[in-house]
Amino acid sequence: LAGNGSDDLLTIITRAFVGPGDLLVYPTPSYILYRTLAELQDARVAEVAFAPDWSLDPASFARPGARLAFLANPNSPSGTTLRPEQVASIAERLDCPLIVDEAYADFAESDCIALVASHPNVIVTRTFSKGYSLAGLRLGYLIARPEILAGLVKVKDSYNCDTLSLVGATAALEDRDYHEQTRAKILATRRRLTAAVRALGYHVPESQANFVWCTGGPPAAEVYQALKDQKILVRLMRYAGYDDGLRITVGTDEEIDRLLEALRAILRAG
Amino acid sequence: LAGNGSDDLLTIITRAFVGPGDLLVYPTPSYILYRTLAELQDARVAEVAFAPDWSLDPASFARPGARLAFLANPNSPSGTTLRPEQVASIAERLDCPLIVDEAYADFAESDCIALVASHPNVIVTRTFSKGYSLAGLRLGYLIARPEILAGLVKVKDSYNCDTLSLVGATAALEDRDYHEQTRAKILATRRRLTAAVRALGYHVPESQANFVWCTGGPPAAEVYQALKDQKILVRLMRYAGYDDGLRITVGTDEEIDRLLEALRAILRAG
Repeated sequence: LAGNGSDDLLTIITRAFVGPGDLLVYPTPSYILYRTLAELQDARVAEVAFAPDWSLDPASFARPGARLAFLANPNSPSGTTLRPEQVASIAERLDCPLIVDEAYADFAESDCIALVASHPNVIVTRTFSKGYSLAGLRLGYLIARPEILAGLVKVKDSYNCDTLSLVGATAALEDRDYHEQTRAKILATRRRLTAAVRALGYHVPESQANFVWCTGGPPAAEVYQALKDQKILVRLMRYAGYDDGLRITVGTDEEIDRLLEALRAILRAG
Repeated sequence: LAGNGSDDLLTIITRAFVGPGDLLVYPTPSYILYRTLAELQDARVAEVAFAPDWSLDPASFARPGARLAFLANPNSPSGTTLRPEQVASIAERLDCPLIVDEAYADFAESDCIALVASHPNVIVTRTFSKGYSLAGLRLGYLIARPEILAGLVKVKDSYNCDTLSLVGATAALEDRDYHEQTRAKILATRRRLTAAVRALGYHVPESQANFVWCTGGPPAAEVYQALKDQKILVRLMRYAGYDDGLRITVGTDEEIDRLLEALRAILRAG
């Protein structure tokens, strides 16, 4: 099933499975849209905290009575990934659909598409906005069992994908070489960025996405503002009960060089 | 406000203004999506019948307590249009937003955009799918007062329009000459089609859209099937309490010639 961006697909899924007062489960810190979707449906939420090493206990995540569960994998802001067997273990404990939101899977070592065949409650969502750099197309798709797809087709808006986006996305899918080159470049720059930011004293989990999550430095809001003053934009992210952090997207080598230079100067001055 | 097709905009508007049990008003026979949208919101509906001459009595249409009213103008399937002063009279009697659905306004002699300035409850929706032949773009827009737009922006999906569609639609808007030529061609063919189908005995109201509504002939389902057997597709439309009819879209001159030839043969044989 294709959608007008993968956020649109997450919205369709939520409308299909969750009503007022129903329980919706997702981990925290994670993608902030999940809470918004729950609020739109007047649903109750269970926000299950990741362990400090960004692992997730299947037994505590799989809340009894949940109507829908979201799992960003790779996760944002951490960039960390649960292995398919861990996701399978979560799916087995849930009595409801588990949405594995693979927006960033193009940058990861593993994905959960095979689980759709083995676990009937797994739905995998993907997007062309990240790994294919085609955010302007507003195109996402999801992979699920035929019986789930039939239910979603009923509730989605008619004609939700335009022709030009479908043609563009098809062309992008066919150009495997270009996709592989882009991916290899981003992974190399991510390694370099991770090492450099760690050397500056930040705590950075091993990322499998196209960003790195930096905590443990000086007050994040001040560093964010100092970078912004130099027209360098990173994401300042705050989660209740956690230290603020900076999510830095893996840009070109030139952009990352400029960022690292600015960041070193700010930390020296601060 | 731009949307992923004008149907998407009608959906956003319905979600914004109508909750379970609320009253939604629209005329009948008209666009069948209005009932679907009401059902999605578990709303009550008042379907107000057009008079035999396709006029609409403002006093009976403007139901007290309505939360939202839809008016397709030009209407489908009739192709008929209420004049702006008649629409104004309806708007003045309503205590709720009046959506003037102008999907076919590119083919009409008048439109209600000026009413947005004079009547704060009027919202006009438009599309690129009809007058601009760009249905594949999935792009619509609506015109309303700033305070209404602010409310709709809050409830719409984020990033609902893709870049390529916006660029294509902008280019189409700028090419006024091409648009005028297309319009003139369709209006000329519509006149010829209307006269020819009337000469065959059909009752056809004067259309201001890109289709004509044909009733009063032999059983419409049989004529529809006989045309379909010759790979000529018209719309067979049924409304409770009304005779079936055929809605024939104004195609190219060659398409209309072929249709008229086939229709004459079917009516002679029947």
